[in-house]
Amino acid sequence: MTIKTKYSGILLFTILQVLLSLNLMGQNSDENPPNFVIIFADDLGYGDLSTYGNPTIHTPTLDRMAYEGQKWTNFYVGASVCTPSRAALLTGRLPVRSGMANNKTRVLFPDSKNGLPHKEITLAEQLKKAGYSTACIGKWHLGHKEQYLPTNNGFDYYFGIPYSNDMDKNPSIPYGDYWKQPNDSIKTEHFNVPLLRNTEIIERPANQNSITKRYSDETIKFIKENKDRPFFVYLAHNLPHIPLFVSKDFEGKSKRGLYGDVVEEIDHGIGNILKTLKEEGLEDNTIVVFTSDNGPWLPFKNNGGSAGLLRAGKGTTWEGGMREPAIFWGPGLIKSGLVSELGSTMDLFSTFSALAGVAIPKDRIIDGKDLSKTLLKRETSPRNSILFYRGTELFAVRLGDFKAHYITQGAYGEFGERKEHDPPLLFNLSHDASEKFDIAAQHPEVIEQINALIASHNSNLVKGKDQLAERE
Amino acid sequence: MTIKTKYSGILLFTILQVLLSLNLMGQNSDENPPNFVIIFADDLGYGDLSTYGNPTIHTPTLDRMAYEGQKWTNFYVGASVCTPSRAALLTGRLPVRSGMANNKTRVLFPDSKNGLPHKEITLAEQLKKAGYSTACIGKWHLGHKEQYLPTNNGFDYYFGIPYSNDMDKNPSIPYGDYWKQPNDSIKTEHFNVPLLRNTEIIERPANQNSITKRYSDETIKFIKENKDRPFFVYLAHNLPHIPLFVSKDFEGKSKRGLYGDVVEEIDHGIGNILKTLKEEGLEDNTIVVFTSDNGPWLPFKNNGGSAGLLRAGKGTTWEGGMREPAIFWGPGLIKSGLVSELGSTMDLFSTFSALAGVAIPKDRIIDGKDLSKTLLKRETSPRNSILFYRGTELFAVRLGDFKAHYITQGAYGEFGERKEHDPPLLFNLSHDASEKFDIAAQHPEVIEQINALIASHNSNLVKGKDQLAERE
Repeated sequence: MTIKTKYSGILLFTILQVLLSLNLMGQNSDENPPNFVIIFADDLGYGDLSTYGNPTIHTPTLDRMAYEGQKWTNFYVGASVCTPSRAALLTGRLPVRSGMANNKTRVLFPDSKNGLPHKEITLAEQLKKAGYSTACIGKWHLGHKEQYLPTNNGFDYYFGIPYSNDMDKNPSIPYGDYWKQPNDSIKTEHFNVPLLRNTEIIERPANQNSITKRYSDETIKFIKENKDRPFFVYLAHNLPHIPLFVSKDFEGKSKRGLYGDVVEEIDHGIGNILKTLKEEGLEDNTIVVFTSDNGPWLPFKNNGGSAGLLRAGKGTTWEGGMREPAIFWGPGLIKSGLVSELGSTMDLFSTFSALAGVAIPKDRIIDGKDLSKTLLKRETSPRNSILFYRGTELFAVRLGDFKAHYITQGAYGEFGERKEHDPPLLFNLSHDASEKFDIAAQHPEVIEQINALIASHNSNLVKGKDQLAERE
Repeated sequence: MTIKTKYSGILLFTILQVLLSLNLMGQNSDENPPNFVIIFADDLGYGDLSTYGNPTIHTPTLDRMAYEGQKWTNFYVGASVCTPSRAALLTGRLPVRSGMANNKTRVLFPDSKNGLPHKEITLAEQLKKAGYSTACIGKWHLGHKEQYLPTNNGFDYYFGIPYSNDMDKNPSIPYGDYWKQPNDSIKTEHFNVPLLRNTEIIERPANQNSITKRYSDETIKFIKENKDRPFFVYLAHNLPHIPLFVSKDFEGKSKRGLYGDVVEEIDHGIGNILKTLKEEGLEDNTIVVFTSDNGPWLPFKNNGGSAGLLRAGKGTTWEGGMREPAIFWGPGLIKSGLVSELGSTMDLFSTFSALAGVAIPKDRIIDGKDLSKTLLKRETSPRNSILFYRGTELFAVRLGDFKAHYITQGAYGEFGERKEHDPPLLFNLSHDASEKFDIAAQHPEVIEQINALIASHNSNLVKGKDQLAERE
């Protein structure tokens, strides 16, 4: 070898290293990218797992995941109701950008005309670029017409219900009965919700008593069938959204009543999924995340969940509406510990894209942050702010420890009427997670910083065409 | 061996077995009874540890203990303020029986004349019968005169302050400053609280900045010096009761502000204690319990703690006043898991007496239950009820899942005036830990059962002579 050849070799090696570090060697830089399982509960609150302080719901699997993995305590969703929250998670973008936000209907209904616009890129579509097998199991709620279903949004497989489990109601059921516990008068056949496999209706009404178990079993089946490729499962349980149903095995099992039975059945199913990962030798290269779409639906009393120490619940931009349990588990990958820094469901898009070696789209604003270094190396979370939208209006902003409320409004007849605040209400959420002590007068400089952040956000905000308004 | 001799042998063996089971072979039936460390925090609320849902106080040691040991979620104290709560823990009896309860002063003050009556038997006195070395480290608050101090109540050693850390106040300090955070204006020298070793004042005012660390270090020293005998340490931290102080090492360490700094310093000290137990080979035969004397002192805002999802706080008979975190750890003894059954600090008296092989006094009513089979074998807790006294008045009663409030009253200017309820308010605490939904009208039969329990309780109640009223 001449000196020249030797230097050429070193040069080539260096160029290769640079290319690798810039991730220009192709979409998938890792030969064995991790598998992802996102488990998304529906209307489960911050205070509904034992590891987040619930006294009577026993969630041993999630407690173990929180202990072995990372338990995030300042983790947010993109909206405080179903449809926009799901759009945010799957696209990594604020729903106001995709048009999946609306101030009146707030979510999609069985007579809605539209769904997630095709130009949006879902996490499933991202991961397909890296050769992942992808499945959506559970509630979709991003458009029930065929062109909007999961199989047209990057998922190879779909098994679930297209909208909420309380939609398509039998009008003879008195609404007031919902909150009764146990609600013997409410039966699964009172809701004409369809169950789909891919694009076909296979059962109508969906048998909701067995649905939680079936979602878990479908997930296990998909994992077993796709274990030789990287896979992504988005398991979006349609419970504990009311009406509540459980299988016989879990009826009366929890001290917390029917709501607890439902959560314990979900926890049990997750236990079976983890067991499968272990048995199939996938444990060390799979990340399982658990979180929920929004806070508890409080008017339903004990058939709704608990936001723990947080204020208010579903439908509001108070913490109880948008801060959720978030557990990242993966014994071979996740560095365990409590993370009290900021995170968002939108970050899953960016984080899992990064871990799979897929570039983030450059033609649009992506709100997600890449949390991979926090998950894998316990570096500080790159996220420093949270925008609290209600529909298409920005109600509140968190910057670091502080949250400013410019508009507050209750939901479902609770927690007060719409009110604008000038100056905004200001809370230090690290000291005062319950949003009790307004400190706006003491911190005008923080409000100025938050105002500047909002101005910057507004300067490049293009609101997407409303996809929720049109009904048939 | 003749048949007769053989039968004699069997008979003798049987008699021995019966004697052993009746615990008549002497006070200490076990050759190697377990060591006990009770760690009692002051005014720490149900929601102040990460494992009970706190988002910004990091308590990795307590979280580990909760995961490796038993985390109790329906565990109560004997009163919602200091003195009677401590009397309940140490005697296993309701404070109303010992006279350590009063409706006006509620606790002992530096000018109080009396203390825990000598005829009361403390857990330390019980364990002395089985040859334990005993230490009280921290806040006593059961009488500051020499005859009432720990060394006259069964403790071989005492290191701590005799009453609350906010007593003996410098009158020049404006009361309103307490709740400010950080409260730079409040210094340890503004409180003339004495620090005692045994019966001698060794420092006055006690340096409260270093006191938490010193309590932990004294505990470690005592354990090392007494490792060859069974030992009992009652480590009663005088924090996070206001005023809050921390050592330099913990100043600004927590995201939760000064309150969080204090709790994290306590957690850190517990970590050092566990490390000592491991290093000294005591880990497998020691039970460490962590709990707190009453709920958070809420008027102090962020300088007070959080009751999490529970209603109200210190001073009240709402759940926030009397339900506390309770963690039992002991890798060689405690069967791990979440326990959502009932327990009380009074049960420590009976449980540890049983584990040490010491008989329960028969000449008085002991309210404690023996939880040892729940701790060691995960049998169902033998406790089925909780009496919520405020001073000498029974305000509420829990029976199984249900709690009836006959009288409610706020405290420290919050949560309303005294109000009597007939019928009582009734809550299902297993479903509704936050005491939101009164279901008295639906469950008259439960109220009847609770009324019967109260009648039975009253039938043999002898109220002890008031020890708190007399002042100098």
